[in-house]
Amino acid sequence: MSRAWGGDGGGGAPAGTAGARPDEARRHNRAALLRRLHVAGPCTRATLAAELGLNRSTIKAVVDGLAEAGVVTEAVPAQRNGAGRPSLMVLPEPEAAVVLAIDVRVEQVAMAMVGIGGQVLGRHSWNLHHRTRAPGEVITHIAESAQLLADELAVSARGAAVSVPGVVRRDDGFVHEAPNLGWRDVALGTRLAAVLRIPVQVANDAELGALAEHVRGEAHGVDDLVYISADRGVGGGVIAAGRPLRGTRGYVGEIGHLVVRPGGRDCYCGNRGCWETEVGEAALCRALGLPEDTPRGVIVAELRSLATAPLPGPLDEFAEWLATGLVTVVNVTAPDLVVLGDLFTALPPAVVDHVRTQVHERSLVSRAVGGTRIETSPLGRDAKLVGAAELAFEPVLGAV
Amino acid sequence: MSRAWGGDGGGGAPAGTAGARPDEARRHNRAALLRRLHVAGPCTRATLAAELGLNRSTIKAVVDGLAEAGVVTEAVPAQRNGAGRPSLMVLPEPEAAVVLAIDVRVEQVAMAMVGIGGQVLGRHSWNLHHRTRAPGEVITHIAESAQLLADELAVSARGAAVSVPGVVRRDDGFVHEAPNLGWRDVALGTRLAAVLRIPVQVANDAELGALAEHVRGEAHGVDDLVYISADRGVGGGVIAAGRPLRGTRGYVGEIGHLVVRPGGRDCYCGNRGCWETEVGEAALCRALGLPEDTPRGVIVAELRSLATAPLPGPLDEFAEWLATGLVTVVNVTAPDLVVLGDLFTALPPAVVDHVRTQVHERSLVSRAVGGTRIETSPLGRDAKLVGAAELAFEPVLGAV
Repeated sequence: MSRAWGGDGGGGAPAGTAGARPDEARRHNRAALLRRLHVAGPCTRATLAAELGLNRSTIKAVVDGLAEAGVVTEAVPAQRNGAGRPSLMVLPEPEAAVVLAIDVRVEQVAMAMVGIGGQVLGRHSWNLHHRTRAPGEVITHIAESAQLLADELAVSARGAAVSVPGVVRRDDGFVHEAPNLGWRDVALGTRLAAVLRIPVQVANDAELGALAEHVRGEAHGVDDLVYISADRGVGGGVIAAGRPLRGTRGYVGEIGHLVVRPGGRDCYCGNRGCWETEVGEAALCRALGLPEDTPRGVIVAELRSLATAPLPGPLDEFAEWLATGLVTVVNVTAPDLVVLGDLFTALPPAVVDHVRTQVHERSLVSRAVGGTRIETSPLGRDAKLVGAAELAFEPVLGAV
Repeated sequence: MSRAWGGDGGGGAPAGTAGARPDEARRHNRAALLRRLHVAGPCTRATLAAELGLNRSTIKAVVDGLAEAGVVTEAVPAQRNGAGRPSLMVLPEPEAAVVLAIDVRVEQVAMAMVGIGGQVLGRHSWNLHHRTRAPGEVITHIAESAQLLADELAVSARGAAVSVPGVVRRDDGFVHEAPNLGWRDVALGTRLAAVLRIPVQVANDAELGALAEHVRGEAHGVDDLVYISADRGVGGGVIAAGRPLRGTRGYVGEIGHLVVRPGGRDCYCGNRGCWETEVGEAALCRALGLPEDTPRGVIVAELRSLATAPLPGPLDEFAEWLATGLVTVVNVTAPDLVVLGDLFTALPPAVVDHVRTQVHERSLVSRAVGGTRIETSPLGRDAKLVGAAELAFEPVLGAV
């Protein structure tokens, strides 16, 4: 089971801690059980008892309470094993607690209403053009779309979380700088909470990608991982010992701005030769001989056309910079797994293989830990939306 | 107060948790109180009560128990404030619990017997020449010196910790690779525990430097910091949210092997252009026009002679690489403070100032967090020894 991400919700002390106050223990057990169903899906009471380390009477009390509140149901499984009386399955009711997940990207805003268990109840997205990328307009549009989704689905969200490609102060969702959006000093959390009238959390997109991979993706069950993704920019989220790596005042790093090529191209961040300038979307376009503002679909199609091409090829230099940055990331954070997300999932397998070999050969730490795995994300472009839903669910599952 | 570093000792649940089992609570309170005295020095019972959030009768019981065991004493303070009856000060008895701290460096092994409160009771060091750098000989010499120190001081250590400049598996103190020592696959923890007959922990030197700065140095009270140091090699330790950043299976990263100069000098690690090759001791020698094997004392003297020299100067390029690597480190880990340790503490102030300015100008994250501070270590060359002592004390303070 995944550990809690933020401050309040989900995790904390082990279930059934001896000596905890009864009401605290009850609340804790209820949240732990619900989180188990949310992350890993329906199962029997016996499995819940075994996994949570609680006795059957405690499980019964918690399940009965949740069933009475309409949060779970119990049902005979469709497939029966053996001849005995079948164990009832405990199933979460997706609509019993719904959150709003929002992914603000450079070219698009995507939103989804997500129920317990991660079920997407409905989604909505729109393209951003320069005239509508202003924070005020994006906020208004999000509020309108949230209302539409709520009306269509006849549900109301208990909380929301937003993914933003930028430097975010987690306490209050203040976006310090989201350069690829052209945003600076936007009180996004406060402003969205005011119009949505629900609690709103805001987080860096790569941090949420890492969360999504940890809970529902390639890194499920892995406690030390790095998620790297390319959209317009390049970002990375680190999870160490099951917890997100954050720096001072909750800020997360900007892995896309590690320096791979001193004296290289100017980056908007004030530096030169940032990783982002060598392996971001624009760099990929250059490598493919496409204009830097080529639409995403065309870039992906072009990458697909190279899917079976062997190396060397047009992506050689790109692969070199990807490997160089990854050597630094692996040497600094010693992960078990690196997940390549978003646009990187469209890279030809030969490129990913080459990068994998290079990192293993050139990273002292990869060799020490027995070979850091490097995989592409199964969640693809949805990772940040999935991560936003998980972030929004944390306080919600503890309060259902 | 500093949080616990390792697994077992010191920290954990808050003191005085309601509902905890009485014997656990007692043990916890005892360890917390002792840790407070160890880290922050003598104080009154009233201060202990306020800081630990415990009532006076609990404090009295714990202090009385510790006094009876000879671990603390109570005394009238030398300086009296006001006219009332003076509060008794609670003082730790340094020799009531002693640990052995060992710093294995490339040129020297340093050892110290350290008492509660961090008091160095005695120390011993010897230079390593090529013929005596073999693990077996180092282990034998450490065991002999430990015996000498114990005899001289008439104390026996309850635990030991060793700092090693290499990749260490924390579980069992296995040194995977310590290239500057020429060590590979050395079961240092197990072998030392067998000859010293006390529990032995082994950790990466930069991680221990970070611990030392956090507990007793520049970073006291700072929860997000990076410690970078140059001995022969360059290492870095990261503390995020008060906890050491570790990767898979407890390995810490090797910040000295982030890539600053692609296509640069070959590094023994299999990579080229590692930060270590540009800002390690050899690079400093090259910058100063000295042979690469110049003794440390001569390098430091040469640096001191430049102390008041303005830039530009011979260290311009060196400063540039130092800044470039720091931009990457700050962008990836978003620290509040970077502490430059060991050989870096001898850098001319103008160089440190230049690096500080460069990092602030070129790091998006430094600007976002309001300016990452960059300071030199007050602990200097002792940082790793101090860190080893603190690591050794963790389980010991919980068991006194």
